[in-house]
Amino acid sequence: MKRRKTRQISLGGVKIGGNAPVVVQTMTTTNPRDVRRSVEQILRVEKAGAEIVRVAVPDMKAAGALKEIKKKINIPLVADIHYDYRLALMALAQGVDGIRINPGNIGKKERVESIVKAARELSIPIRIGVNAGSLEEDILLKYNCRPTAEALVESALRYVKLFNEMGFEDIKLSLKSSDVMTTVQAYRMISKEVDYPLHLGVTEAGTTLIGSIKSAVAMGILLSEGIGDTIRVSLTADPVEEVRAAYEILKALGLRKRGLNLVSCPSCGRAEIDVIPLTEKVEEGLRDIVTPITVAVMGCVVNGPGEAKEADIGIAGGKGVGLLFKKGKKAAKIKESEMAESLIKEVLQSAMGKGI
Amino acid sequence: MKRRKTRQISLGGVKIGGNAPVVVQTMTTTNPRDVRRSVEQILRVEKAGAEIVRVAVPDMKAAGALKEIKKKINIPLVADIHYDYRLALMALAQGVDGIRINPGNIGKKERVESIVKAARELSIPIRIGVNAGSLEEDILLKYNCRPTAEALVESALRYVKLFNEMGFEDIKLSLKSSDVMTTVQAYRMISKEVDYPLHLGVTEAGTTLIGSIKSAVAMGILLSEGIGDTIRVSLTADPVEEVRAAYEILKALGLRKRGLNLVSCPSCGRAEIDVIPLTEKVEEGLRDIVTPITVAVMGCVVNGPGEAKEADIGIAGGKGVGLLFKKGKKAAKIKESEMAESLIKEVLQSAMGKGI
Repeated sequence: MKRRKTRQISLGGVKIGGNAPVVVQTMTTTNPRDVRRSVEQILRVEKAGAEIVRVAVPDMKAAGALKEIKKKINIPLVADIHYDYRLALMALAQGVDGIRINPGNIGKKERVESIVKAARELSIPIRIGVNAGSLEEDILLKYNCRPTAEALVESALRYVKLFNEMGFEDIKLSLKSSDVMTTVQAYRMISKEVDYPLHLGVTEAGTTLIGSIKSAVAMGILLSEGIGDTIRVSLTADPVEEVRAAYEILKALGLRKRGLNLVSCPSCGRAEIDVIPLTEKVEEGLRDIVTPITVAVMGCVVNGPGEAKEADIGIAGGKGVGLLFKKGKKAAKIKESEMAESLIKEVLQSAMGKGI
Repeated sequence: MKRRKTRQISLGGVKIGGNAPVVVQTMTTTNPRDVRRSVEQILRVEKAGAEIVRVAVPDMKAAGALKEIKKKINIPLVADIHYDYRLALMALAQGVDGIRINPGNIGKKERVESIVKAARELSIPIRIGVNAGSLEEDILLKYNCRPTAEALVESALRYVKLFNEMGFEDIKLSLKSSDVMTTVQAYRMISKEVDYPLHLGVTEAGTTLIGSIKSAVAMGILLSEGIGDTIRVSLTADPVEEVRAAYEILKALGLRKRGLNLVSCPSCGRAEIDVIPLTEKVEEGLRDIVTPITVAVMGCVVNGPGEAKEADIGIAGGKGVGLLFKKGKKAAKIKESEMAESLIKEVLQSAMGKGI
């Protein structure tokens, strides 16, 4: 997979674009004015692997709490700004690492310019974050009131031009639609126009499963075409789920490694052990490991020994027993009742050896 | 999205390949000898939208039960055969609509030939189903014991050649690996070699969420490149989940329409209603509708009205109330406590009007 060449920006020390790995980010569901809950949530997403976190800034009170939040967290903080440019200025004064503005609702040119000036002085990058649900009226009208890919691109390029006229290049772009193929099309088009790093996302994608599937389809297509430098999976769910889904997508594409790579059979009429509850237990028990490790849970002899051998650690079911494989070699015979516990123990020991 | 041209086969009346829509299939977790449980599960996957169902056939007793199962179900039945060619012959005698054989374990040429002869007489298509966990030993050895994409393709083509020598063209192919990018690579390669319809799948993909993400990445990439005529999402879960995930993938790609297209915001610090439980209730309440309908559940005014207007029916949250939109027009103001119920009722009424 050849990645498209983009300029690199640095957001609070995290590199995005260029030859940097695809960065995983998320957004809190909290209001920053509730510092305690916001920090608690951010520390949880950090643990899950979030590399950047964004917070909504609905008003001045929220903006004024950002310094306090920033002190207590360990990853770069981005302020999400809509409507009022003064919220951006306040967020910058509070020391945030990045700003996201929405061309669709930030208003007059002079107001945008004042944000760009302040960001330039502080060397803080800005994401131009276009969203199909909130395009500028004149652009919507031009495209028959439909938020098409072309409309999203036009909105983004208008702001890029304005930023460039001011000599500001510390830019990241996103063009999100809740429609997967519109999103894909918009990113394909913008990637031919500019070389700024791209933040991928399907907006308002839905609950955990549906939203993860939509995001995986869009990001799978785009990243396989080399497009995309950082991703956010938008889910109507706890943001920890967004981070987990993001890593699963990147792991599937071979772009990042982290924690459990689970290989488990769908348990057909041939299975000789009860695969579904066993796999669920193993997944639950290994959810928080960070060291990359492939674990296979297989119900029968058709693909069982083959997959179990390919994995770092695997179990292949037989009649009431399982064969445990470690690094491709049979290591033990285990009773069905002890499989979950044994497998989890083996994996944790192995991961420990590698440093978590 | 331009789909690759493939020959068309007909499996129990369901067309696969050519210009047919991408077909959704699944596999039971039951043993066919338990006719009652198998039929019960198949009727459930039919209701969820499965268009073809496959069952494992581990032994003669299972093979002998297929006629009984077939009588009681409404979608084509495929027998999944490993190791013993006589199971295929018995399944064919029982009236199945399709056979899947695994080149990696079906054995001697003469045995394969006897299956092909029997299928030809009955005009029953055969899937050559290659799986990375069970490749032929000589092929594995040739590729340094690694089930690479090239190895998968070589295994499939060996059987294609054998079938062609017998004048048998009623073929479907699959080349599944538990590694997403190996799967993608194998299908890309085989699609350049032959024009038989392709059955897509990532094997042993994992539990519902992880497995759906892996499948969405692989199928998203391949289908966006025009590759793939039927899909099965393999999950360590109830097969109804496989069918639901398959439709979500196809809906995201714009290749099929079915039931709820949910657009829901991730509920940031700006949300003025409690979006997560509301969305979960709405999703649960509308899970079984078949008529395609787009429903938006949005927490605030940033993208809320925009998305709610684009949807067939949408709700955009304000302070303790929501604006209900129908076909882009404001229709009512609803109290937060009544939102889920009202939205579900509106959608059901609208779907009813269209015929479910």
